[in-house]
Amino acid sequence: MRFDEAYSGNVFIKSKQNYEEAQAVIYGMPMDWTVSYRPGSRFGPQRIREVSIGLEEYSPYLDRELDDVNYFDAGDIPLPFGNASKSLDLIAGFIRQLMQDGKIPVGMGGEHLVSWPVMKTVADNYKDLAIIHMDAHTDLRVEYEGEPLSHSTPIRKIAEYIGPKNVYSFGIRSGMKEEFDWAKENGMHISKFEVLEPLKEVLPTLEGRPVYVTIDIDVLDPAHAPGTGTVDCGGITSRELLASIHAIASSGVNVVGFDLVEVAPIYDSSEQTANTASKLLREMILGWVK
Amino acid sequence: MRFDEAYSGNVFIKSKQNYEEAQAVIYGMPMDWTVSYRPGSRFGPQRIREVSIGLEEYSPYLDRELDDVNYFDAGDIPLPFGNASKSLDLIAGFIRQLMQDGKIPVGMGGEHLVSWPVMKTVADNYKDLAIIHMDAHTDLRVEYEGEPLSHSTPIRKIAEYIGPKNVYSFGIRSGMKEEFDWAKENGMHISKFEVLEPLKEVLPTLEGRPVYVTIDIDVLDPAHAPGTGTVDCGGITSRELLASIHAIASSGVNVVGFDLVEVAPIYDSSEQTANTASKLLREMILGWVK
Amino acid sequence: MRFDEAYSGNVFIKSKQNYEEAQAVIYGMPMDWTVSYRPGSRFGPQRIREVSIGLEEYSPYLDRELDDVNYFDAGDIPLPFGNASKSLDLIAGFIRQLMQDGKIPVGMGGEHLVSWPVMKTVADNYKDLAIIHMDAHTDLRVEYEGEPLSHSTPIRKIAEYIGPKNVYSFGIRSGMKEEFDWAKENGMHISKFEVLEPLKEVLPTLEGRPVYVTIDIDVLDPAHAPGTGTVDCGGITSRELLASIHAIASSGVNVVGFDLVEVAPIYDSSEQTANTASKLLREMILGWVK
Amino acid sequence: MRFDEAYSGNVFIKSKQNYEEAQAVIYGMPMDWTVSYRPGSRFGPQRIREVSIGLEEYSPYLDRELDDVNYFDAGDIPLPFGNASKSLDLIAGFIRQLMQDGKIPVGMGGEHLVSWPVMKTVADNYKDLAIIHMDAHTDLRVEYEGEPLSHSTPIRKIAEYIGPKNVYSFGIRSGMKEEFDWAKENGMHISKFEVLEPLKEVLPTLEGRPVYVTIDIDVLDPAHAPGTGTVDCGGITSRELLASIHAIASSGVNVVGFDLVEVAPIYDSSEQTANTASKLLREMILGWVK
Amino acid sequence: MRFDEAYSGNVFIKSKQNYEEAQAVIYGMPMDWTVSYRPGSRFGPQRIREVSIGLEEYSPYLDRELDDVNYFDAGDIPLPFGNASKSLDLIAGFIRQLMQDGKIPVGMGGEHLVSWPVMKTVADNYKDLAIIHMDAHTDLRVEYEGEPLSHSTPIRKIAEYIGPKNVYSFGIRSGMKEEFDWAKENGMHISKFEVLEPLKEVLPTLEGRPVYVTIDIDVLDPAHAPGTGTVDCGGITSRELLASIHAIASSGVNVVGFDLVEVAPIYDSSEQTANTASKLLREMILGWVK
Amino acid sequence: MRFDEAYSGNVFIKSKQNYEEAQAVIYGMPMDWTVSYRPGSRFGPQRIREVSIGLEEYSPYLDRELDDVNYFDAGDIPLPFGNASKSLDLIAGFIRQLMQDGKIPVGMGGEHLVSWPVMKTVADNYKDLAIIHMDAHTDLRVEYEGEPLSHSTPIRKIAEYIGPKNVYSFGIRSGMKEEFDWAKENGMHISKFEVLEPLKEVLPTLEGRPVYVTIDIDVLDPAHAPGTGTVDCGGITSRELLASIHAIASSGVNVVGFDLVEVAPIYDSSEQTANTASKLLREMILGWVK
Ligand SMILES: [Mn+2]
Ligand SMILES: [Mn+2]
Ligand SMILES: [Mn+2]
Ligand SMILES: [Mn+2]
Ligand SMILES: [Mn+2]
Ligand SMILES: [Mn+2]
Ligand SMILES: [Mn+2]
Ligand SMILES: [Mn+2]
Ligand SMILES: [Mn+2]
Ligand SMILES: [Mn+2]
Ligand SMILES: [Mn+2]
Ligand SMILES: [Mn+2]
Repeated sequence: MRFDEAYSGNVFIKSKQNYEEAQAVIYGMPMDWTVSYRPGSRFGPQRIREVSIGLEEYSPYLDRELDDVNYFDAGDIPLPFGNASKSLDLIAGFIRQLMQDGKIPVGMGGEHLVSWPVMKTVADNYKDLAIIHMDAHTDLRVEYEGEPLSHSTPIRKIAEYIGPKNVYSFGIRSGMKEEFDWAKENGMHISKFEVLEPLKEVLPTLEGRPVYVTIDIDVLDPAHAPGTGTVDCGGITSRELLASIHAIASSGVNVVGFDLVEVAPIYDSSEQTANTASKLLREMILGWVK
Repeated sequence: MRFDEAYSGNVFIKSKQNYEEAQAVIYGMPMDWTVSYRPGSRFGPQRIREVSIGLEEYSPYLDRELDDVNYFDAGDIPLPFGNASKSLDLIAGFIRQLMQDGKIPVGMGGEHLVSWPVMKTVADNYKDLAIIHMDAHTDLRVEYEGEPLSHSTPIRKIAEYIGPKNVYSFGIRSGMKEEFDWAKENGMHISKFEVLEPLKEVLPTLEGRPVYVTIDIDVLDPAHAPGTGTVDCGGITSRELLASIHAIASSGVNVVGFDLVEVAPIYDSSEQTANTASKLLREMILGWVK
Repeated sequence: MRFDEAYSGNVFIKSKQNYEEAQAVIYGMPMDWTVSYRPGSRFGPQRIREVSIGLEEYSPYLDRELDDVNYFDAGDIPLPFGNASKSLDLIAGFIRQLMQDGKIPVGMGGEHLVSWPVMKTVADNYKDLAIIHMDAHTDLRVEYEGEPLSHSTPIRKIAEYIGPKNVYSFGIRSGMKEEFDWAKENGMHISKFEVLEPLKEVLPTLEGRPVYVTIDIDVLDPAHAPGTGTVDCGGITSRELLASIHAIASSGVNVVGFDLVEVAPIYDSSEQTANTASKLLREMILGWVK
Repeated sequence: MRFDEAYSGNVFIKSKQNYEEAQAVIYGMPMDWTVSYRPGSRFGPQRIREVSIGLEEYSPYLDRELDDVNYFDAGDIPLPFGNASKSLDLIAGFIRQLMQDGKIPVGMGGEHLVSWPVMKTVADNYKDLAIIHMDAHTDLRVEYEGEPLSHSTPIRKIAEYIGPKNVYSFGIRSGMKEEFDWAKENGMHISKFEVLEPLKEVLPTLEGRPVYVTIDIDVLDPAHAPGTGTVDCGGITSRELLASIHAIASSGVNVVGFDLVEVAPIYDSSEQTANTASKLLREMILGWVK
Repeated sequence: MRFDEAYSGNVFIKSKQNYEEAQAVIYGMPMDWTVSYRPGSRFGPQRIREVSIGLEEYSPYLDRELDDVNYFDAGDIPLPFGNASKSLDLIAGFIRQLMQDGKIPVGMGGEHLVSWPVMKTVADNYKDLAIIHMDAHTDLRVEYEGEPLSHSTPIRKIAEYIGPKNVYSFGIRSGMKEEFDWAKENGMHISKFEVLEPLKEVLPTLEGRPVYVTIDIDVLDPAHAPGTGTVDCGGITSRELLASIHAIASSGVNVVGFDLVEVAPIYDSSEQTANTASKLLREMILGWVK
Repeated sequence: MRFDEAYSGNVFIKSKQNYEEAQAVIYGMPMDWTVSYRPGSRFGPQRIREVSIGLEEYSPYLDRELDDVNYFDAGDIPLPFGNASKSLDLIAGFIRQLMQDGKIPVGMGGEHLVSWPVMKTVADNYKDLAIIHMDAHTDLRVEYEGEPLSHSTPIRKIAEYIGPKNVYSFGIRSGMKEEFDWAKENGMHISKFEVLEPLKEVLPTLEGRPVYVTIDIDVLDPAHAPGTGTVDCGGITSRELLASIHAIASSGVNVVGFDLVEVAPIYDSSEQTANTASKLLREMILGWVK
């Protein structure tokens, strides 16, 4: 006596009704309490689901339909407002469960810090894990004004956890000099400004490896994603980001988890960014969940 | 393996999980295709749910908590875009089911025309039904530019169905001369401009009768509800509308169904109207579902 | 071969097609170049026309229909950007023509300074003219930072032209001490904060006299008119303003011209203010053009 | 005694005052009642006219001025709200008149379904007509959830009417698998993702033929046209669309009619999309009306 | 070689240039990291300053000018993002300095939790301190979902610190049943829904006592203050709030500090709320700093 | 006793505290009274400062930090509303002072006309001055509807003052035929549509010369800068503009002053344009102040 949820906007469009049989599990991480500039990404996951009903179910890029993939949308993880530490623990706990159940985690942020407990937990399960990171920002800070739990730190944390050589950042156009220096000194890959071309060079070297992909929506130029906390001009187009997703899809890497973060509806007056995020997720699901 | 929905924004806050045991059933009617001016109310129900998580669960007006009422949110009725006739049939079918199961229907619009099949079906079940209607507009047209299915007609339809003497309109400040004349000639009650004071006079005369209450959010002044298709200044305050809801709650009428319609999020830049609708629904549920 | 304009939004709804036979002439004055704070009222007249198609043609307040009045919408007077002096001359020239042709001028602003040449020209034609002025602001400055052509000066100019004793301001809640002092010393009427009650006391004293009414939309509280340059809280409701219009309609004064100014669409995200202005104009036309 | 309309925003800038002598006739089709997602395009034509006054009259791309073309803006065709069938009949009737009078129809939408009666009527007059269609979407559905009159069907309808081989779609990035398959199986041209390069290849094959061009504004990336109902990332730039218009202008095809549809002002907070539509129309008029 | 700041929008209008001679000190507390619903109040203080340049310097309510008061705007206290505990310490430290220097603190929020360290520090200096609290919300929670530092707790904290009998809340229309019960059981004053009338009854009982006044902008109805995190309909008008400020001004209480919190510009599309806050502050300064 | 302003948003981020030692001086010119279309740029400079606190202080493009440059933000020049002539005089006076003190002027507009007195005064100090101008518009009008002080005239004025051969315009896509003709006939450089490639060709010819660079933000496509008065599609990307700034930085020209004008926050709902302007200024300061 509940109307079918597949097109309700309560779940990502065409989400299957059953966790047990799902290959991939979608979940939201509605946290934005450590951001240094404009908050609001806590409402990102829900808005992405809501606009997903406007999507076509078929991808003319990949010639595949959403019906061909078995995914389940678990909803938003309930997180305690203002308590970053406890929030990260709750996220980690949820991901551990997914790992035990053999699911591919598909996360929606929320601020980028939420990716840290996810990447860490996935790394605990895939020993040779590599990270592909697309972002305007390095996110390599040790702390932000004394605070080690900040949305500018997740890539530093995972780089130190799995080794900087296993982390590949693309599209970076903002950061402190110290961050760029640290990356260079520690053998971490950073492609400044560009995503698609350097990615195409990196992918063959990652063939066969388990890879977690984390995409900060602000890797897009503000023209393509105004609805995010920290807009930074000079970014890539949605077309380049789509092509990058497709490049990963047709490469030999094994995507074992991924997320899309930092969508903030309050700065997105035409819902353009949420719609873009929704289409990007469709392509990631169709391209990466095999 | 699905996070608790009670605070998810996917259902009206604290909706119980079980249809069978519910006394009242909430549902959305996402239709706006007959409006003559500004469309967008199709997105009203979903936004009201979304913001309902910001509500306190306790009413200091009624000294009652949402936990004290057993209601189930069934989601939005899937309606075919642009086909008013078929949409109304689907709504009527759903309400017939609720009537059979002995549920109190709690509807969220959508344009006001959606109330017509609901009121008709409820009237089929409660032979002495009266309608309390709060609105800026008479909604008494026979048709709009030749079209009998229009958001300016539902009160005329139900008045002709159950007899104009059983329909009581309040807060009306807009309509054609012909509509006001028809009401007067046929003994239908219309209180112009005011709601609370005339309502207090009418309620004792309805004591003991089954009553369906239909509230068009535009009965509020645009200051209190900018997020609707047809704003019309000179309306009542949210305070007067709350007091009117409480007046019905403490009267001797038997509310057997109710709805709140015409919330259009796209004109509601601060989400003020959706938040107001959400609080009004809380008070209606706490005051009228006994 | 041009579609009927009466409902096109290009003219105020139901504008007749003929200047010659019209009793009243509507015109826009799209000027905002002297404002000290937020510009944008140059787009007010056009937006008011555009939303006027959402109006009912009948007033349940006055029991009269737009068809009963013969008015013509002449469009916006073309004014030279940034040149206040020349703009005022052009406005004055147009009003002189209306006076010669025996028309009632119905102006839409634009900033309040546009009322000055209108009032002056009307005063030249009606020797015993009185001004009724509703506004949040005194508008009694001699100049603004050295500039005698400023939107804070029109009431001072007309008060000096026809004598301060013939000017009646209502709803005033903002101004310099010097302005309030000047009014008091010179016998000009200022009702602070309130409109309806003091107006009811003044109207009998004006019986039989020709009156020009100038309404600055910011006399309304920002809740009722957010779309204006200088919002100032503590104002009146749209209900009080409607009642004030009706009080003038049922008094014995002879309204020989009127305007509504300072609507600025860019600050009016839900078009609430433009819709309100449009309804106010309907009531002014129905109540005052006899 | 009516101010010159050429710069009033009531007509497209510099519209001539005379239908009889006009070579091209501009008209709006304010209909959006069959859209499946976000309504609002009914207000598109009026907003495009309004912002057209910000245009320069000269094109540095084409070295031609608006004064060099004789076009007349007839206003918006009055359409009955919510009645798609009757609306399409009214549009067809108007176009028949234009055909009889030898005018080039220049339409502004409104949802894309409005192009169907236009294209059909033009096809009745130009026996060898070809269609050039630029859009994010195939618009090749037979029906949408059972409804044959839907904004996702116009290209299918015209393709079946004049034969799929005479229809050329460009920029398509969204549709059902069945739609792409139908096009392929029936010899209809679809260029996925790109417009300019494939268009340059197609144009020589159309030399000398009468061509109707229909442009859905959502062929642009949402960065370039946020103000439309169905935004879909990965689209083309306004620069590519301008160049495509110019490519048609300098080709040997004979443009006998054209339209620009799906501009929805409510999602266009900076009026960027309406301004873009207005410039595109200027270039189409200057480039195609010879 | 720096332009005069008095009208720059960088400081509250007409702020004097010298801390030492100032009687009152204005400061911002740009913190919003514990809010449970919509963040954004961190940008409130700066926006209030920015729009303050639109204020008249004279109050026709109080017949006093800003030049008559010596106040200094110290800017925003730099607070560490996401760290509530440290932020509160920094605020307390700043207020201790003000107390030592004999200044009247005039705070701008930021979320309501920022008032807690201010009230505590002021209470340490004025042994018989009473609190006047205007708010839609009780703010009497012990914690929010386990978190004792939450914007729903400041009044509970100060009530326990100085004794519930010394705290007077007005306008309250939202809270948990437990909060209302705790207040009643502990002799704390709560006026539900109304502010002005109950305040007038309370003020004589506080005559001669030092009083700290904390105003949450959401005590206003959303019609009057849409730009705040938690809008709650059924509130008071700006006119009632102005009258309440004036009632305190003309009473015999000794205002030793005050604040205005929870202004969130991102939900304030017309800047109406920031403008209202700015005028309220002017009236508080003119009425309370003697 | 005033909090450090470097990160306050009251000054451009990291502005030094001392005029005397500064090499460059930032100042705002909050004037928009001559614009022919949409006003609002008077609020540009303040908003750019406000969002500048979201900037990283390091440029990964130029490998340089803001700490490496000594610049002072003097605030906004107080300009008299509506009086263009006097405003320009005040700007000229300020620039003369900067010239005497050997400072590099770094201006923020305001409408483009403000650049005229700046360029003239700089030209008086650097006898061989060249102008690099990036804009969507020629700005070569002699007057606008009879008004010689218009935002469409500054480049004409400086071209006539220093000789058209010393002026180089890039990115131009809008203007009257007469303007393009005048440029061609008088040997002034105009690159239509493109900026980076033609600039790279011009720069070597300017080696060693003093150059003033004036950038109208509308040279960017509306996708990249919706927040400006006159949006005009078909523009360049922010990436091309950044690269153009860097091309000047690495060329042999001697930048002796520069400005960025026409940012209008009211049309910039996500603050995307202000953020872009802020980053562009950082790159100009880091690249050009040596
Ligand atoms: Mn990131
Ligand atoms: Mn980022
Ligand atoms: Mn209704
Ligand atoms: Mn209604
Ligand atoms: Mn005024
Ligand atoms: Mn005013
Ligand atoms: Mn289409
Ligand atoms: Mn389309
Ligand atoms: Mn509070
Ligand atoms: Mn509160
Ligand atoms: Mn320019
Ligand atoms: Mn320009």
